[in-house]
Amino acid sequence: MFKKILIANRGEIALRVIRTCREMGIKTVAVYSTADKDSLHVKFADEAVCIGRPQSSDSYLNIPHIMAAAEITNADAIHPGYGFLAENAKFSEICGEHNIKFIGPTPAMINAMGDKITAKETMIKAGVPVIPGSDGLLESLEQALDLAKNTVGYPIILKATAGGGGKGMRVVWHEEEMERAYNTAKAEALASFKNDGIYMEKFVEEPRHIEIQIAGDQYGKVCHLSERDCSIQRRHQKLVEESPSPFMTPELRQKMGEAAIKAASAINYESVGTIEFLVDKHRNFFFMEMNTRIQVEHCVTEEVVNFDLIKEQIKIAAGEPISGRNYEPEMHAIECRINAEDPYNDFRPSPGKITVLHQPGGHGIRIDSHVYTGYTIPPYYDSMIAKIIAVARTRDEAIDTMHRALSEYVIEGVKTTIPFHLQLMKDERFRAGDFNTKFLEGFTMH
Amino acid sequence: MFKKILIANRGEIALRVIRTCREMGIKTVAVYSTADKDSLHVKFADEAVCIGRPQSSDSYLNIPHIMAAAEITNADAIHPGYGFLAENAKFSEICGEHNIKFIGPTPAMINAMGDKITAKETMIKAGVPVIPGSDGLLESLEQALDLAKNTVGYPIILKATAGGGGKGMRVVWHEEEMERAYNTAKAEALASFKNDGIYMEKFVEEPRHIEIQIAGDQYGKVCHLSERDCSIQRRHQKLVEESPSPFMTPELRQKMGEAAIKAASAINYESVGTIEFLVDKHRNFFFMEMNTRIQVEHCVTEEVVNFDLIKEQIKIAAGEPISGRNYEPEMHAIECRINAEDPYNDFRPSPGKITVLHQPGGHGIRIDSHVYTGYTIPPYYDSMIAKIIAVARTRDEAIDTMHRALSEYVIEGVKTTIPFHLQLMKDERFRAGDFNTKFLEGFTMH
Repeated sequence: MFKKILIANRGEIALRVIRTCREMGIKTVAVYSTADKDSLHVKFADEAVCIGRPQSSDSYLNIPHIMAAAEITNADAIHPGYGFLAENAKFSEICGEHNIKFIGPTPAMINAMGDKITAKETMIKAGVPVIPGSDGLLESLEQALDLAKNTVGYPIILKATAGGGGKGMRVVWHEEEMERAYNTAKAEALASFKNDGIYMEKFVEEPRHIEIQIAGDQYGKVCHLSERDCSIQRRHQKLVEESPSPFMTPELRQKMGEAAIKAASAINYESVGTIEFLVDKHRNFFFMEMNTRIQVEHCVTEEVVNFDLIKEQIKIAAGEPISGRNYEPEMHAIECRINAEDPYNDFRPSPGKITVLHQPGGHGIRIDSHVYTGYTIPPYYDSMIAKIIAVARTRDEAIDTMHRALSEYVIEGVKTTIPFHLQLMKDERFRAGDFNTKFLEGFTMH
Repeated sequence: MFKKILIANRGEIALRVIRTCREMGIKTVAVYSTADKDSLHVKFADEAVCIGRPQSSDSYLNIPHIMAAAEITNADAIHPGYGFLAENAKFSEICGEHNIKFIGPTPAMINAMGDKITAKETMIKAGVPVIPGSDGLLESLEQALDLAKNTVGYPIILKATAGGGGKGMRVVWHEEEMERAYNTAKAEALASFKNDGIYMEKFVEEPRHIEIQIAGDQYGKVCHLSERDCSIQRRHQKLVEESPSPFMTPELRQKMGEAAIKAASAINYESVGTIEFLVDKHRNFFFMEMNTRIQVEHCVTEEVVNFDLIKEQIKIAAGEPISGRNYEPEMHAIECRINAEDPYNDFRPSPGKITVLHQPGGHGIRIDSHVYTGYTIPPYYDSMIAKIIAVARTRDEAIDTMHRALSEYVIEGVKTTIPFHLQLMKDERFRAGDFNTKFLEGFTMH
């Protein structure tokens, strides 16, 4: 087992990794920018090395500085956390060259999933469903009609290759609508982007973002640890995650679990990772991407399968085999991301000093946070200041526990997303499990 | 279901009950002494009524004041917590007379277990093992020899009826030691207490305090929720509790579970409750007493069976039936009581103002606490300021998680038992599960 792990990250995930290292008897090295010198990850690590100025490029993305910190502290492994260098194949490679174990997959595995086109091709070969569509631009209306009828299946969506903001986009539900849609999409694309190239994709109806947590070891064994539903998103930023998904069925879980294992096995994946899928209202699912790292929302899985995923990740990196058994959720867990943002003002970031902090506790509540009374949130990094996770036997109970805990949470000095989560936990549609990735488009704070 | 519950208690248990009520959508009324006006249970309740001066007799034990608070707030039930009036049959009776539901057993049930002699007789009749011994004082050496040989079984202990502090006490392992022990015990008793009356009990070797959590409903169904090992005690005060007990076997759990159900059924018990047993090194177990209320250490059970015991207690009081199924521990949980006491100075109470508080969090950690930064611990009540519970798949992991969390806990301004717990979690004998109720007699802080 490793003797000393350097955590090439900051905030709650750095603290999260330090906690597990402490429990495993492994020494830790924190690295920090000058803006983070008072952060808890610095206080709780055995050693801490300042690696540069606040800008990420000068510190948390500065590979030479991080490698120097690892060498002077004699760390034998580096945990990258999420974000920053976590999916940087070059960094993983440099660690290897310095004989320092990168706690995550090999550079080849990161590259295989980092490039979207390669990843999609690999998935098709492995038999993992991807969103069907045209192979590049559409050449004619006839081709579009043929593709939609014989290959993709209605409904489809036409998208401008130069597009964005909905311009040049048309959903087509039936064959007879195609001609008109094809022509208007092309015309709109030309008018908007001076480029009338359009392509076709299967239209995913009422899409849910459901991802499968997997773990693979160095001996070719891969297992899954069930799903997380991350459909509550705002501009592609996840705000709430839960496991199990209220939309899940045992059959779908089995199918998606098998697909996730195929996806990971196709690249001989080792470490923990996540296969993200879009699931339509008919419970068809399509590969979106694979995250070759630990994710923010890993905690909900930990709570439902009673498993420390960071410990697992470290053990896999150290060469330990996994059992290979798949895990079903035994409980229901929900995570709310507490961001220093103002939900009444378009979620504008609200950095500053936390003048009063009191965290809730009690049955079914877990909190992962690097902040404390008197802590100043630096403006340089993401705005997440805490994750709160509620666990119970049923989804209804988990939501009630979450609401109770949120109502106890005291954070003064900055605005937070707590009022948003309080309102969401009482929302009838959310409580009914009736939501998809577009849910928040129709949600307003009252 | 109840509409409004008054909590006739203070501190963490008052907050604990408020939390579950909030999750159940039940309004709450806090009562408080003038010393507790800034307590969290007052802040988080929907309503709060001051019931008197700091002395418990003027406030938390003052039945007329509490009943008046219930009447003016229109509460339809009272939760007594633990301590104070929780096992006061008169209070339970008065609640009934005022048409306010006492969330706990009936006065008759409380009385049946409150009187030790009655309780013991009831247990014998129900077939629950009690510590065997002489029926009153020993009349002669011959009687002692006969009893020890034919009824109680060696080893036995002779005790002075007027005794205390070990005077007049003698353990007898074999028949041939009896005469000498009988005579010295009598002589010592006479010299120490001017009363040479002695009686005999079975000597419980390497006694462990293991208790069984039970729940019974109004329809005669009783189930058990496995055991808690509370052997880590200092002067009969529990400091650490865990479930399962490292000493437990599936056979013993089944036998003790059945005995606990018999004990509760014998008095038609309704509500949650605990049957406390002493278990000797041969895994013989003996009824000590029944606590007809929720206990401080109920949280470890909640964590291993994934069950909200306060919710269960409220539902039973409202007339809901229980499933009647017994529960086995699915995880391992340990609780450390954080008291404002100085472990380096004979655990002397250390009331005062908490100038800095930072609670640990992360995977496997639950905290139940009513204190916060700036809170002043009043000197009038017990010194417990927090309970920290660690949960993991194995005992070793739970201990490691607990140690990690304790090492993060920041409480400044008062002395606490945290250093004691940190040392205990690293103690080889504790980690090996090799301890009994006398363990702390040989434990010194380093």
